[in-house]
Amino acid sequence: MAIQAVSLEKSYRLLNHGATVLVSAKHGEIENVMAASWACALEFSPAKVTVVLDKSTFTRALVEQSEWFALQVPVAHQAQMVVDVGTDSMHDFPDKLQKYGVKLFYQNDYPTPLVEGCAGWLVCKLISEPHNQQVHDLFIGEVVAAWADDRIFKDGHWHFDEVPNELKTLHYVAGGQFYLTGAGLKVNKGT
Amino acid sequence: MAIQAVSLEKSYRLLNHGATVLVSAKHGEIENVMAASWACALEFSPAKVTVVLDKSTFTRALVEQSEWFALQVPVAHQAQMVVDVGTDSMHDFPDKLQKYGVKLFYQNDYPTPLVEGCAGWLVCKLISEPHNQQVHDLFIGEVVAAWADDRIFKDGHWHFDEVPNELKTLHYVAGGQFYLTGAGLKVNKGT
Repeated sequence: MAIQAVSLEKSYRLLNHGATVLVSAKHGEIENVMAASWACALEFSPAKVTVVLDKSTFTRALVEQSEWFALQVPVAHQAQMVVDVGTDSMHDFPDKLQKYGVKLFYQNDYPTPLVEGCAGWLVCKLISEPHNQQVHDLFIGEVVAAWADDRIFKDGHWHFDEVPNELKTLHYVAGGQFYLTGAGLKVNKGT
Repeated sequence: MAIQAVSLEKSYRLLNHGATVLVSAKHGEIENVMAASWACALEFSPAKVTVVLDKSTFTRALVEQSEWFALQVPVAHQAQMVVDVGTDSMHDFPDKLQKYGVKLFYQNDYPTPLVEGCAGWLVCKLISEPHNQQVHDLFIGEVVAAWADDRIFKDGHWHFDEVPNELKTLHYVAGGQFYLTGAGLKVNKGT
């Protein structure tokens, strides 16, 4: 596999099918990762996203302080890690990333760590909106760079029908229950 | 099948796996339906949702005028209709619902029409936020009632592993490309 850049105008496609994401952030020397189902594209150009970050999460403070975050799309073989980092807070488990084997990397000097093994990554600059953040726990970011694992997403398209289940993305419901991204279905506009 | 009520505190589960939705609204005698990929849960209790409604859409004006909308989760056998109502605007095709065979119904005297044949429905009262609506095309609603097709969602859980593909929900990417909701994967929190 190779990590290939995704154009900003097509970066929404990494999120459009509604997969569960991991949210990563760093402030000072502290890096963290949490899981989130409530992340969504907001605008095509400039590419923007929303993500809901509860006030109880450690990652939220890192986002507020650094004004950067990344969204990344984990795959099925990472499901246990997604549940674990989504359940345990760094408030209570300062070593949670090591405990759950989360490996981070950095791309092109952006200040936000990315999680190894995901299908796609979006680095986002926070667009500060105090009302949305305080009242709705809703954070808006402008996507400034995106990449994908070219086995799974290439030339602006997902290739889920060509990868084994372990490389399919995850759709979380509740109580540890996920559904994998399933079979493709192509529909042409009717007349 | 039967349409069964979903409790408000579990209604987020109808959206949590990130399926593409249909947005319906009515003002005066005018009913309309559009497709949207950018819809998301926002809060558990009181249950709230976000949905992005571009200024070019006819449905957006109905939502602004009536202050009500519904989100509903279509299934695979409706994919052609989802693309068609998501492509053609009522601005240009006043008869689009008839043209594409969209059948509407009402539940329990709520003022918003619902689309027949979907897997789940959420009736939402608009929470007016002019900044979000104008700047981000982002609409927030409080969920006031929800229902599901009990073949597909029952007792607070999806049952996708027990239904044929035609009853699985849809995850849109771009250019007519969907992926169906796939196989279930249950993960228990690690220790």
